[in-house]
Amino acid sequence: MILLAPWELLLLMFANFFSRATCMTVGPRSSMGFETCYCLSWRVAVEANNAQAWRTVPAQCVLYVENYMLGGQYNKDLDVVIEQISTYLNGIVAAGDGKDAWVLDIDDTCLSNLLYYQGKRFGGDPWDPSAFKSWAQRGLCPPIPAVLRLYSRLVQGGFKVFLLTGRDEEALGVSTAENLHAWGFVGYERLILRGPAYRGQSAVGFKSSMRKQLVEEGYRIRGNVGDQWSDLQGDFIGDRIFKIPNPMYFVP
Amino acid sequence: MILLAPWELLLLMFANFFSRATCMTVGPRSSMGFETCYCLSWRVAVEANNAQAWRTVPAQCVLYVENYMLGGQYNKDLDVVIEQISTYLNGIVAAGDGKDAWVLDIDDTCLSNLLYYQGKRFGGDPWDPSAFKSWAQRGLCPPIPAVLRLYSRLVQGGFKVFLLTGRDEEALGVSTAENLHAWGFVGYERLILRGPAYRGQSAVGFKSSMRKQLVEEGYRIRGNVGDQWSDLQGDFIGDRIFKIPNPMYFVP
Repeated sequence: MILLAPWELLLLMFANFFSRATCMTVGPRSSMGFETCYCLSWRVAVEANNAQAWRTVPAQCVLYVENYMLGGQYNKDLDVVIEQISTYLNGIVAAGDGKDAWVLDIDDTCLSNLLYYQGKRFGGDPWDPSAFKSWAQRGLCPPIPAVLRLYSRLVQGGFKVFLLTGRDEEALGVSTAENLHAWGFVGYERLILRGPAYRGQSAVGFKSSMRKQLVEEGYRIRGNVGDQWSDLQGDFIGDRIFKIPNPMYFVP
Repeated sequence: MILLAPWELLLLMFANFFSRATCMTVGPRSSMGFETCYCLSWRVAVEANNAQAWRTVPAQCVLYVENYMLGGQYNKDLDVVIEQISTYLNGIVAAGDGKDAWVLDIDDTCLSNLLYYQGKRFGGDPWDPSAFKSWAQRGLCPPIPAVLRLYSRLVQGGFKVFLLTGRDEEALGVSTAENLHAWGFVGYERLILRGPAYRGQSAVGFKSSMRKQLVEEGYRIRGNVGDQWSDLQGDFIGDRIFKIPNPMYFVP
């Protein structure tokens, strides 16, 4: 038997109560419970695009984001988004003319940079372009399995898939193509990276221009999937947009 | 002293572990932990507008939504959205010409229907237009305090506030105006309800038409706040949109 003083039992029950994601707005707060509640609110604000132009994960939420990304909730969130996409897909068919298109982002949509961001305190550290370039040039990003399954379904369903990324074409074109191929992202219609003419342009501007071109070529963008709102805003966004969760960084 | 068998202590620790919002994707799952993780994912999908056209809260999430609405996290989420709006407001000023406008939705944005939805299993029951009409005609909706504070700041800051609601003008015009007045929603520029010409039109269509009219009158919509994505989509949505949380119902 293990002997517990009444206060020890109370403490255990108290800790359990506060970790049950109950965020009392009045009364005593344990520091842990308070921060978890705030950080969950912040994460939802990011996903709903209420929080904009943030540069790093708030200091008090770094541990929360680590736990979110590694503890299972991130994967659960991904599953639910892919479930929503599947439901939508069940209601549409690709016409025989080969013009039904889907646009998918790459970073943290098709391929995961979680291993990279693990070394950047899950977004607690500021954006580091040269370190990210080195990482991406290695071409070792694993896929996000739920998105890879979606990708395969799209290709097999006769949709033309366009992979549209803000990655620099010159620096990362080869490694990106190889990285995608190694994990089975094959059979896409086109891989569109940022060419020299679009360097320095906002993600919304660049991606809108690229989608405009697709529409001018006669493609109908039936769906558009990305982890950043800048993937999903601007012109020719498509019939339906889907936001993949990402609380680690914000691309304007 | 309280005597605990080792298995009792283990059970307590186990319960604590699973209630820590840790959603293991492999390994054992407690039923409670699993549902909480799923329902959180579902709620985030609603806020990010990935989940669309849902008719009721999923049966397994009714208790989760009740706990979310009453347990404090909803209020915490509201605070964080209002914080984001405040940050945005700090960077803009109303010009002296009286044409800087904000558009605010009413139901579950300015006024709360939580008491009504408590009787509808927090959205677990389907939409009941006649019961809702009776509720709204009583004019007893309390305000959402955080939004009332925002409202006051907007009016005092020289912005013209337009309250734009899909509520029927004929049936609910008087009770709505009185309800707003009773709680201190005074000094707005215009209360816009759904007139007979717009009955049966989608919320996006009706609200777009109303905003178009404002823009034609020379107003600049600096911000647009609503609990439904249909408040925030369509034409003339404004310089910046803010999504107020609401996992209880979806207005197409």
